[in-house]
Amino acid sequence: MTIKPWKTVESKYILKDRWMTLRADRCETAEGVIVEPYYVQEPCDWVHIVAFNEKHEILLTEQYRHGIAKVCLELPCGGVEDGEAPEAAIRRELLEETGCQVGELVALPPMSPNPARYANLIYPFVSFGTEQIQEQSLDATEDISFTFYPIPQVIELVRQGEFWQSLHVATLFLALDRAGILKLKGV
Amino acid sequence: MTIKPWKTVESKYILKDRWMTLRADRCETAEGVIVEPYYVQEPCDWVHIVAFNEKHEILLTEQYRHGIAKVCLELPCGGVEDGEAPEAAIRRELLEETGCQVGELVALPPMSPNPARYANLIYPFVSFGTEQIQEQSLDATEDISFTFYPIPQVIELVRQGEFWQSLHVATLFLALDRAGILKLKGV
Repeated sequence: MTIKPWKTVESKYILKDRWMTLRADRCETAEGVIVEPYYVQEPCDWVHIVAFNEKHEILLTEQYRHGIAKVCLELPCGGVEDGEAPEAAIRRELLEETGCQVGELVALPPMSPNPARYANLIYPFVSFGTEQIQEQSLDATEDISFTFYPIPQVIELVRQGEFWQSLHVATLFLALDRAGILKLKGV
Repeated sequence: MTIKPWKTVESKYILKDRWMTLRADRCETAEGVIVEPYYVQEPCDWVHIVAFNEKHEILLTEQYRHGIAKVCLELPCGGVEDGEAPEAAIRRELLEETGCQVGELVALPPMSPNPARYANLIYPFVSFGTEQIQEQSLDATEDISFTFYPIPQVIELVRQGEFWQSLHVATLFLALDRAGILKLKGV
Protein backbone atom coordinates (compact mmCIF):
# COMPACT_ATOMS: atom_id res chain seq x y z
CA MET A 1 0.00 0.00 0.00
CA THR A 2 1.35 3.43 -0.93
CA ILE A 3 0.65 6.16 1.57
CA LYS A 4 -0.16 9.47 -0.09
CA PRO A 5 0.73 12.92 1.26
CA TRP A 6 -1.85 15.62 2.03
CA LYS A 7 -2.23 18.86 0.11
CA THR A 8 -1.98 22.15 2.01
CA VAL A 9 -4.94 24.21 0.82
CA GLU A 10 -4.36 27.19 3.09
CA SER A 11 -1.82 28.16 5.72
CA LYS A 12 -1.66 30.99 8.24
CA TYR A 13 0.61 31.90 11.11
CA ILE A 14 -1.23 32.26 14.40
CA LEU A 15 1.80 32.91 16.63
CA LYS A 16 5.23 34.17 15.63
CA ASP A 17 7.58 35.59 18.24
CA ARG A 18 11.06 34.89 19.55
CA TRP A 19 9.84 31.75 21.34
CA MET A 20 7.31 30.10 19.07
CA THR A 21 6.26 29.98 15.43
CA LEU A 22 2.91 28.24 15.09
CA ARG A 23 1.03 27.69 11.84
CA ALA A 24 -2.55 26.50 11.28
CA ASP A 25 -3.05 24.70 7.97
CA ARG A 26 -6.16 23.65 6.08
CA CYS A 27 -5.22 20.30 4.52
CA GLU A 28 -6.84 17.85 2.16
CA THR A 29 -6.08 14.13 2.33
CA ALA A 30 -5.64 12.02 -0.83
CA GLU A 31 -9.25 10.85 -0.33
CA GLY A 32 -10.45 14.46 -0.31
CA VAL A 33 -11.14 14.74 3.41
CA ILE A 34 -10.50 18.23 4.84
CA VAL A 35 -8.33 18.42 8.00
CA GLU A 36 -8.50 21.81 9.71
CA PRO A 37 -6.92 23.30 11.73
CA TYR A 38 -3.74 21.25 11.56
CA TYR A 39 -1.16 22.93 13.78
CA VAL A 40 2.51 22.85 12.79
CA GLN A 41 5.32 24.37 14.82
CA GLU A 42 8.41 25.73 13.11
CA PRO A 43 11.18 25.99 15.72
CA CYS A 44 14.82 26.41 14.70
CA ASP A 45 16.70 23.15 14.15
CA TRP A 46 18.11 21.58 17.29
CA VAL A 47 21.54 20.07 18.03
CA HIS A 48 22.52 17.39 20.59
CA ILE A 49 25.87 15.92 21.51
CA VAL A 50 27.18 12.82 23.22
CA ALA A 51 30.57 14.22 24.27
CA PHE A 52 32.96 11.59 25.61
CA ASN A 53 36.06 12.56 27.58
CA GLU A 54 39.36 10.63 27.46
CA LYS A 55 38.01 8.14 30.04
CA HIS A 56 34.99 7.39 27.81
CA GLU A 57 32.66 9.14 30.23
CA ILE A 58 29.69 11.10 28.88
CA LEU A 59 29.04 14.78 29.61
CA LEU A 60 25.54 15.36 31.02
CA THR A 61 23.93 18.63 32.04
CA GLU A 62 21.23 19.35 34.57
CA GLN A 63 18.76 22.22 34.30
CA TYR A 64 15.23 23.21 35.22
CA ARG A 65 12.75 22.55 32.40
CA HIS A 66 9.54 24.46 32.79
CA GLY A 67 7.41 22.35 30.37
CA ILE A 68 7.49 19.44 32.80
CA ALA A 69 8.41 21.69 35.79
CA LYS A 70 11.34 19.50 36.90
CA VAL A 71 15.11 19.59 37.00
CA CYS A 72 16.24 17.27 34.17
CA LEU A 73 19.42 15.37 33.38
CA GLU A 74 20.18 15.87 29.69
CA LEU A 75 22.75 15.91 26.93
CA PRO A 76 24.27 19.28 26.03
CA CYS A 77 21.94 20.69 23.39
CA GLY A 78 20.66 23.87 21.83
CA GLY A 79 19.25 25.65 18.82
CA VAL A 80 20.82 26.37 15.44
CA GLU A 81 20.85 30.10 14.74
CA ASP A 82 20.00 31.62 11.34
CA GLY A 83 22.76 30.92 8.85
CA GLU A 84 24.71 28.77 11.33
CA ALA A 85 25.90 25.24 10.47
CA PRO A 86 24.73 22.54 12.92
CA GLU A 87 28.41 21.72 13.70
CA ALA A 88 29.08 25.35 14.65
CA ALA A 89 25.88 25.47 16.72
CA ILE A 90 26.76 22.44 18.85
CA ARG A 91 30.32 23.70 19.44
CA ARG A 92 28.91 27.09 20.50
CA GLU A 93 26.23 25.60 22.77
CA LEU A 94 28.69 23.19 24.39
CA LEU A 95 31.13 26.00 25.11
CA GLU A 96 28.39 28.25 26.52
CA GLU A 97 26.72 25.59 28.66
CA THR A 98 29.82 23.79 29.96
CA GLY A 99 32.97 25.61 28.84
CA CYS A 100 33.96 22.39 27.06
CA GLN A 101 35.58 21.95 23.69
CA VAL A 102 35.46 18.80 21.58
CA GLY A 103 37.69 17.45 18.83
CA GLU A 104 36.34 16.03 15.60
CA LEU A 105 32.54 15.89 15.43
CA VAL A 106 30.86 12.80 13.99
CA ALA A 107 27.43 13.65 12.59
CA LEU A 108 24.73 11.06 13.32
CA PRO A 109 21.66 10.83 11.05
CA PRO A 110 19.27 13.78 11.47
CA MET A 111 16.01 12.94 13.22
CA SER A 112 12.58 14.50 13.47
CA PRO A 113 11.64 15.52 17.03
CA ASN A 114 8.01 14.76 16.17
CA PRO A 115 7.05 14.57 12.49
CA ALA A 116 3.35 15.09 13.24
CA ARG A 117 3.83 18.44 14.98
CA TYR A 118 7.23 19.91 14.11
CA ALA A 119 8.79 21.08 10.85
CA ASN A 120 12.34 21.20 12.24
CA LEU A 121 15.13 18.64 12.53
CA ILE A 122 17.51 17.43 15.22
CA TYR A 123 21.20 17.15 14.27
CA PRO A 124 22.83 14.71 16.70
CA PHE A 125 26.60 14.47 17.12
CA VAL A 126 29.11 12.30 18.92
CA SER A 127 32.63 13.37 19.81
CA PHE A 128 35.64 12.19 21.80
CA GLY A 129 38.33 13.95 23.79
CA THR A 130 36.05 16.52 25.43
CA GLU A 131 37.95 18.98 27.64
CA GLN A 132 36.86 21.95 29.69
CA ILE A 133 38.82 24.94 28.43
CA GLN A 134 36.93 27.85 30.01
CA GLU A 135 34.14 28.77 32.42
CA GLN A 136 30.45 28.49 31.48
CA SER A 137 28.92 31.54 29.87
CA LEU A 138 25.18 31.43 30.58
CA ASP A 139 22.24 33.72 29.83
CA ALA A 140 20.56 35.43 32.79
CA THR A 141 17.74 32.85 32.73
CA GLU A 142 20.06 29.82 32.51
CA ASP A 143 21.31 27.76 35.44
CA ILE A 144 23.09 24.64 34.23
CA SER A 145 25.34 22.16 36.04
CA PHE A 146 27.40 19.50 34.25
CA THR A 147 29.25 16.28 35.11
CA PHE A 148 30.92 13.41 33.28
CA TYR A 149 29.23 10.03 33.91
CA PRO A 150 30.60 6.54 33.16
CA ILE A 151 28.65 4.80 30.35
CA PRO A 152 27.17 2.00 32.54
CA GLN A 153 25.83 4.65 34.93
CA VAL A 154 24.19 6.56 32.07
CA ILE A 155 22.54 3.33 30.86
CA GLU A 156 21.33 2.65 34.40
CA LEU A 157 19.88 6.20 34.61
CA VAL A 158 18.00 5.52 31.35
CA ARG A 159 16.69 2.17 32.65
CA GLN A 160 15.54 3.81 35.88
CA GLY A 161 13.77 6.62 34.01
CA GLU A 162 16.08 9.26 35.49
CA PHE A 163 17.58 10.22 32.13
CA TRP A 164 14.20 10.50 30.48
CA GLN A 165 14.31 13.31 27.89
CA SER A 166 13.17 11.10 25.02
CA LEU A 167 14.91 13.03 22.21
CA HIS A 168 18.19 12.73 24.13
CA VAL A 169 17.68 9.02 24.84
CA ALA A 170 17.48 8.52 21.06
CA THR A 171 20.71 10.46 20.48
CA LEU A 172 22.47 8.61 23.31
CA PHE A 173 21.75 5.18 21.80
CA LEU A 174 22.61 6.34 18.26
CA ALA A 175 25.96 7.58 19.59
CA LEU A 176 26.70 4.40 21.56
CA ASP A 177 25.89 2.39 18.43
CA ARG A 178 28.17 4.57 16.27
CA ALA A 179 30.95 4.32 18.86
CA GLY A 180 30.75 0.50 18.62
CA ILE A 181 29.68 0.17 22.25
CA LEU A 182 26.26 -1.37 21.58
CA LYS A 183 26.01 -4.90 20.28
CA LEU A 184 22.95 -6.79 19.09
CA LYS A 185 22.75 -10.21 20.69
CA GLY A 186 21.24 -13.37 19.27
CA VAL A 187 19.83 -11.86 16.08
CA MET B 1 25.56 22.86 42.40
CA THR B 2 21.84 22.54 43.07
CA ILE B 3 19.59 23.68 40.24
CA LYS B 4 16.52 25.52 41.52
CA PRO B 5 13.07 25.46 39.87
CA TRP B 6 11.29 28.56 38.61
CA LYS B 7 8.11 29.99 40.13
CA THR B 8 5.05 30.43 37.92
CA VAL B 9 3.79 33.94 38.65
CA GLU B 10 0.97 33.96 36.12
CA SER B 11 -0.46 31.49 33.63
CA LYS B 12 -3.00 31.84 30.84
CA TYR B 13 -4.28 29.61 28.07
CA ILE B 14 -3.86 31.13 24.64
CA LEU B 15 -5.15 28.18 22.60
CA LYS B 16 -7.36 25.34 23.72
CA ASP B 17 -9.16 23.19 21.18
CA ARG B 18 -9.37 19.54 20.23
CA TRP B 19 -5.88 19.65 18.69
CA MET B 20 -3.77 21.88 20.90
CA THR B 21 -3.66 23.24 24.45
CA LEU B 22 -1.10 26.02 24.70
CA ARG B 23 -0.30 28.03 27.83
CA ALA B 24 1.78 31.19 28.21
CA ASP B 25 3.39 31.53 31.66
CA ARG B 26 5.08 34.41 33.40
CA CYS B 27 7.91 32.78 35.38
CA GLU B 28 10.51 33.92 37.86
CA THR B 29 13.88 32.18 38.14
CA ALA B 30 15.54 31.53 41.53
CA GLU B 31 17.69 34.61 40.85
CA GLY B 32 14.57 36.75 40.37
CA VAL B 33 14.78 37.07 36.59
CA ILE B 34 11.40 37.24 34.85
CA VAL B 35 10.87 34.91 31.87
CA GLU B 36 7.81 35.79 29.80
CA PRO B 37 6.10 34.48 27.77
CA TYR B 38 7.17 30.90 28.41
CA TYR B 39 5.02 28.64 26.23
CA VAL B 40 4.00 25.21 27.51
CA GLN B 41 1.92 22.71 25.57
CA GLU B 42 -0.36 20.28 27.36
CA PRO B 43 -1.18 17.43 24.97
CA CYS B 44 -2.66 14.16 26.22
CA ASP B 45 -0.11 11.54 27.27
CA TRP B 46 1.26 9.45 24.42
CA VAL B 47 1.81 5.69 24.12
CA HIS B 48 4.29 3.76 21.94
CA ILE B 49 4.85 0.05 21.48
CA VAL B 50 7.60 -2.22 20.21
CA ALA B 51 5.41 -5.19 19.30
CA PHE B 52 7.37 -8.33 18.43
CA ASN B 53 5.74 -11.25 16.62
CA GLU B 54 6.66 -14.91 17.23
CA LYS B 55 9.61 -14.57 14.82
CA HIS B 56 11.00 -11.62 16.86
CA GLU B 57 10.16 -9.18 14.08
CA ILE B 58 9.00 -5.67 14.97
CA LEU B 59 5.72 -4.15 13.81
CA LEU B 60 6.24 -0.79 12.07
CA THR B 61 3.65 1.53 10.59
CA GLU B 62 3.90 4.05 7.79
CA GLN B 63 1.82 7.20 7.57
CA TYR B 64 1.93 10.75 6.25
CA ARG B 65 3.00 13.24 8.92
CA HIS B 66 2.10 16.79 8.09
CA GLY B 67 4.51 18.51 10.54
CA ILE B 68 7.47 17.40 8.44
CA ALA B 69 5.31 16.80 5.32
CA LYS B 70 6.68 13.31 4.68
CA VAL B 71 5.55 9.70 4.88
CA CYS B 72 7.24 8.30 8.01
CA LEU B 73 8.12 4.84 9.24
CA GLU B 74 7.15 4.62 12.92
CA LEU B 75 6.17 2.46 15.85
CA PRO B 76 2.45 2.01 16.49
CA CYS B 77 1.52 4.90 18.78
CA GLY B 78 -1.29 7.13 19.90
CA GLY B 79 -2.84 9.28 22.58
CA VAL B 80 -4.24 8.34 25.98
CA GLU B 81 -7.88 9.37 26.28
CA ASP B 82 -9.37 10.96 29.41
CA GLY B 83 -9.67 8.39 32.18
CA GLU B 84 -7.95 5.70 30.11
CA ALA B 85 -4.96 3.69 31.42
CA PRO B 86 -1.85 3.82 29.18
CA GLU B 87 -2.03 0.00 28.80
CA ALA B 88 -5.60 0.23 27.53
CA ALA B 89 -4.67 3.11 25.21
CA ILE B 90 -1.86 1.23 23.49
CA ARG B 91 -3.99 -1.91 23.05
CA ARG B 92 -6.76 0.24 21.54
CA GLU B 93 -4.42 2.16 19.22
CA LEU B 94 -2.65 -1.01 18.06
CA LEU B 95 -5.97 -2.67 17.25
CA GLU B 96 -7.26 0.41 15.39
CA GLU B 97 -4.06 1.07 13.41
CA THR B 98 -3.10 -2.52 12.56
CA GLY B 99 -5.81 -4.94 13.74
CA CYS B 100 -3.13 -6.55 15.93
CA GLN B 101 -3.43 -7.86 19.44
CA VAL B 102 -0.55 -8.36 21.87
CA GLY B 103 -0.11 -10.57 24.91
CA GLU B 104 1.38 -9.31 28.15
CA LEU B 105 2.55 -5.70 28.04
CA VAL B 106 5.86 -4.78 29.67
CA ALA B 107 5.89 -1.11 30.69
CA LEU B 108 9.17 0.71 30.01
CA PRO B 109 10.05 3.83 32.04
CA PRO B 110 7.93 6.86 31.12
CA MET B 111 9.79 9.58 29.22
CA SER B 112 9.27 13.25 28.54
CA PRO B 113 8.83 14.05 24.82
CA ASN B 114 10.51 17.42 25.47
CA PRO B 115 10.65 18.67 29.05
CA ALA B 116 11.24 22.28 27.96
CA ARG B 117 8.04 22.52 25.92
CA TYR B 118 5.62 19.76 26.90
CA ALA B 119 3.80 18.92 30.12
CA ASN B 120 2.81 15.41 29.01
CA LEU B 121 4.51 12.01 29.22
CA ILE B 122 5.23 9.13 26.87
CA TYR B 123 4.41 5.63 28.14
CA PRO B 124 6.48 3.15 26.11
CA PHE B 125 5.70 -0.57 26.05
CA VAL B 126 7.22 -3.75 24.69
CA SER B 127 5.29 -6.92 23.98
CA PHE B 128 5.73 -10.32 22.37
CA GLY B 129 3.47 -12.65 20.42
CA THR B 130 1.77 -9.95 18.35
CA GLU B 131 -0.93 -11.34 16.04
CA GLN B 132 -3.29 -9.72 13.60
CA ILE B 133 -6.82 -10.69 14.70
CA GLN B 134 -8.94 -8.26 12.67
CA GLU B 135 -8.86 -5.58 9.97
CA GLN B 136 -7.64 -2.02 10.64
CA SER B 137 -10.28 0.43 11.77
CA LEU B 138 -9.07 3.89 10.77
CA ASP B 139 -10.52 7.41 11.04
CA ALA B 140 -11.46 9.15 7.79
CA THR B 141 -8.22 11.18 7.91
CA GLU B 142 -5.95 8.18 8.65
CA ASP B 143 -4.11 6.13 6.03
CA ILE B 144 -1.70 3.71 7.71
CA SER B 145 0.19 0.70 6.36
CA PHE B 146 2.02 -1.79 8.59
CA THR B 147 4.66 -4.53 8.21
CA PHE B 148 6.81 -6.70 10.48
CA TYR B 149 10.56 -6.05 10.08
CA PRO B 150 13.47 -8.23 11.31
CA ILE B 151 15.44 -6.53 14.12
CA PRO B 152 18.72 -6.10 12.13
CA GLN B 153 16.74 -4.36 9.37
CA VAL B 154 15.14 -1.96 11.87
CA ILE B 155 18.58 -1.11 13.29
CA GLU B 156 19.85 -0.52 9.76
CA LEU B 157 16.88 1.79 9.04
CA VAL B 158 17.79 3.76 12.19
CA ARG B 159 21.45 3.97 11.16
CA GLN B 160 20.47 5.18 7.68
CA GLY B 161 18.14 7.82 9.11
CA GLU B 162 15.07 6.17 7.55
CA PHE B 163 13.46 5.33 10.89
CA TRP B 164 13.99 8.84 12.24
CA GLN B 165 11.07 9.76 14.51
CA SER B 166 13.28 10.56 17.50
CA LEU B 167 10.72 9.70 20.21
CA HIS B 168 10.26 6.28 18.60
CA VAL B 169 14.01 5.69 18.24
CA ALA B 170 14.24 6.15 22.04
CA THR B 171 11.43 3.64 22.66
CA LEU B 172 12.95 1.16 20.20
CA PHE B 173 16.32 1.09 22.00
CA LEU B 174 14.68 0.94 25.45
CA ALA B 175 12.66 -2.06 24.28
CA LEU B 176 15.67 -3.84 22.71
CA ASP B 177 17.55 -3.26 25.96
CA ARG B 178 14.68 -4.63 28.06
CA ALA B 179 14.34 -7.64 25.75
CA GLY B 180 18.03 -8.46 26.38
CA ILE B 181 18.93 -7.90 22.72
CA LEU B 182 21.31 -4.96 23.27
CA LYS B 183 24.62 -5.53 24.97
CA LEU B 184 27.20 -2.97 26.04
CA LYS B 185 30.64 -3.90 24.77
CA GLY B 186 33.96 -3.14 26.38
CA VAL B 187 32.70 -1.02 29.27
